[in-house]
Amino acid sequence: MTTLPTLNDHGSASHPQLRVNGKRLNQSLDDLAHIGQMDNGGICRLAFSPEDGQGRELVRRWMTEVGMTVRLDTAGNMIGRLPGRRALPALATGSHIDTVPCGGKFDGCLGVLAGIEVARTLQENALQMDHPFEVIVFADEEDTMIGSRAMAGTASLEVNDYRRKDGQPIDQCVQQVGGDWSRLALARRTRGEVCAFVELHVEQGGVLETAKTQIGIVQGVVGMQRYQIHITGRPNHAGTTPMDQRQDALVAAAQVVLAVNQLATEPPGQRVATVGALQVSPNAANIVPGKVIASLDVRDLDEAVIDKLVNDLKIELVAIAQRTHTHIEILPQLHVAPSPAAPHIQSTIADVCTSLGLSAMAMPSRAGHDALEMGRFTDMGMIFVPSEGGFSHSEVEYTSPDQCTQGANVLLETLLRLDQHYS
Amino acid sequence: MTTLPTLNDHGSASHPQLRVNGKRLNQSLDDLAHIGQMDNGGICRLAFSPEDGQGRELVRRWMTEVGMTVRLDTAGNMIGRLPGRRALPALATGSHIDTVPCGGKFDGCLGVLAGIEVARTLQENALQMDHPFEVIVFADEEDTMIGSRAMAGTASLEVNDYRRKDGQPIDQCVQQVGGDWSRLALARRTRGEVCAFVELHVEQGGVLETAKTQIGIVQGVVGMQRYQIHITGRPNHAGTTPMDQRQDALVAAAQVVLAVNQLATEPPGQRVATVGALQVSPNAANIVPGKVIASLDVRDLDEAVIDKLVNDLKIELVAIAQRTHTHIEILPQLHVAPSPAAPHIQSTIADVCTSLGLSAMAMPSRAGHDALEMGRFTDMGMIFVPSEGGFSHSEVEYTSPDQCTQGANVLLETLLRLDQHYS
Repeated sequence: MTTLPTLNDHGSASHPQLRVNGKRLNQSLDDLAHIGQMDNGGICRLAFSPEDGQGRELVRRWMTEVGMTVRLDTAGNMIGRLPGRRALPALATGSHIDTVPCGGKFDGCLGVLAGIEVARTLQENALQMDHPFEVIVFADEEDTMIGSRAMAGTASLEVNDYRRKDGQPIDQCVQQVGGDWSRLALARRTRGEVCAFVELHVEQGGVLETAKTQIGIVQGVVGMQRYQIHITGRPNHAGTTPMDQRQDALVAAAQVVLAVNQLATEPPGQRVATVGALQVSPNAANIVPGKVIASLDVRDLDEAVIDKLVNDLKIELVAIAQRTHTHIEILPQLHVAPSPAAPHIQSTIADVCTSLGLSAMAMPSRAGHDALEMGRFTDMGMIFVPSEGGFSHSEVEYTSPDQCTQGANVLLETLLRLDQHYS
Repeated sequence: MTTLPTLNDHGSASHPQLRVNGKRLNQSLDDLAHIGQMDNGGICRLAFSPEDGQGRELVRRWMTEVGMTVRLDTAGNMIGRLPGRRALPALATGSHIDTVPCGGKFDGCLGVLAGIEVARTLQENALQMDHPFEVIVFADEEDTMIGSRAMAGTASLEVNDYRRKDGQPIDQCVQQVGGDWSRLALARRTRGEVCAFVELHVEQGGVLETAKTQIGIVQGVVGMQRYQIHITGRPNHAGTTPMDQRQDALVAAAQVVLAVNQLATEPPGQRVATVGALQVSPNAANIVPGKVIASLDVRDLDEAVIDKLVNDLKIELVAIAQRTHTHIEILPQLHVAPSPAAPHIQSTIADVCTSLGLSAMAMPSRAGHDALEMGRFTDMGMIFVPSEGGFSHSEVEYTSPDQCTQGANVLLETLLRLDQHYS
């Protein structure tokens, strides 16, 4: 491998003709999609399942075929690596190949297979980067995110802190794919080992499609705060209780839902806030509701924006409780800090799009990704391509072959430029 | 019996000293409460249960002891009757002795036992009314209201139209207490048989207590309309869907809840409207709600008031659907017309309260009662006494012995005056 010409000999930015093989990339997406494919066209390749294992084997074969060394870390992450020309930290890309119970063939897989396609393109053009180049398949992105968390050192070592949807203990799961739970901490990496991580992913939303834009330059993965709001009124006969004697917990909850919506919508910005779940008691047509439990989910790139929304809401809750003669409590459930993308990676992606003649826009990633955790310890960037209709986590998830190819070309060129940047 | 002096000899209005025996009335309430009494003090005497049967036997004994003839009609109603001095339609009172699964000892029973106490008072004062006097124990007030419906001729003859909470077919139930489902229509009565029906009942709400008033003069039993409101938006990822691209069915539902509350509260009047039940789908913290089904229950004495509220709401629903990009449908579920009390019975009750030195106020009955159905075919009136804290259908239901006695005295004097009115 060291006999290959280096990029400095070719100069990626001066090689605008260097492109991935789109046909081969999309063929790989199709091939991987056969593993776990359901009758309705959706993919069921749950993390740690036999299908996940078959997927990993196929990806390992492709990695090996392109000359990568492949290793498993103790968290069950599969890491393919091409050596670099110099003794530098790795430049990494990757994503995941596990799916939700009925997912699509692009979510995660595109990032992994585009990484492999980048390696293939380097290989067939006889190019070698200064930095070692890694493609990482993270374990269990769709549920516990144990893979990227372990690599970032943010994973708990307590098995009981994980509640996998299938009920299987996380230590057994990790063991099953060749990891080693007892030495999980060894999966942790640092900026000294990985100088930057860039992930290509489908948007899973409708922003790019609506804006008729080809590439999303991710500003960061938004932070999230989750709460439960407990509203206690008094259950009463819906016939015999006059309107002015009610303590209707649902009337209060309705005001909470609208207050949340207003606080998220009215000030300019990209924050989102959602009341997605509501439990009404006793939930009978002829009884004034006595108790409501509402969920609250708030996300933004800027933690201060989330904090402000929650604080403004708390003031509003006091007023609503007074108006409706109810008692309202707000209880924290979950807190994930935002993970900003490195500014120079964002500007590199923007420059690449200009070079390649692709339209691009800056946008937050409002869904969690492996890049979120990678951004905790190293420079992180993400490239989005459009999702048709904004659909994801569904068999109708679709990104066209051209869009996949465009995303992979942006990834290739971004990695080549970062290879120079970090040298 | 015909040898007894008649009221015309005594002149009830000129007999302000004629009073029920309050101690005896309250002893009867206690005695009946022993049947089906639960450990927590509540009463479980479900219609058609063995306990209901034991209760009926006790009441039948009391009726017989006071000289009443007792018969069962084909719907399972038990009717005790004292002959009148003249060949006139009956003057009737009564209520029910069945309870909800954990009810109190006053709901229904007070009306039946006060009726028997009126008969006892007539007997021990050697008085006879011009009209035959009936005390009716209606079958299954707490569930199907089959007794009063059959008597009013509003009962369906289709077994499958009844869905009893315990799942037992209604024809078997009626058979069990000595009725005859195949001849149910024979239970129907007319104004020619019953010229007036007056029911004493606990208020089951907090209006009298709040107003520190002893007697409620019921203006009528409110009508009720029930609807289901179906709100269809689009379920979406709570993270990746920007606020301005949402079709949040719960945000729409919150506006519906508040619109209902406003339409019921703002215009002057006594209407009540309740959204008591809400089903949110998929009801997950991280998904924008795609569908909500809300119940709507509207009650008022005046059907035109209910109709106006529902019509105003329909206009509001169109606006809410437009604002929230959702689709909203309102589907009728149940329609019960109001049953007004006869004005001359209301004014008689008012006069009686003045004579007895009891404070009184006019008020609607917002819960259903046997009187509702009786009002469909004859003159109807209702007398309310206070419920402590407004509680009912619960072991904490309470009306003091004095309040029960006051109610029975108002019933006695009202019946005596109506006996003259209809002669």
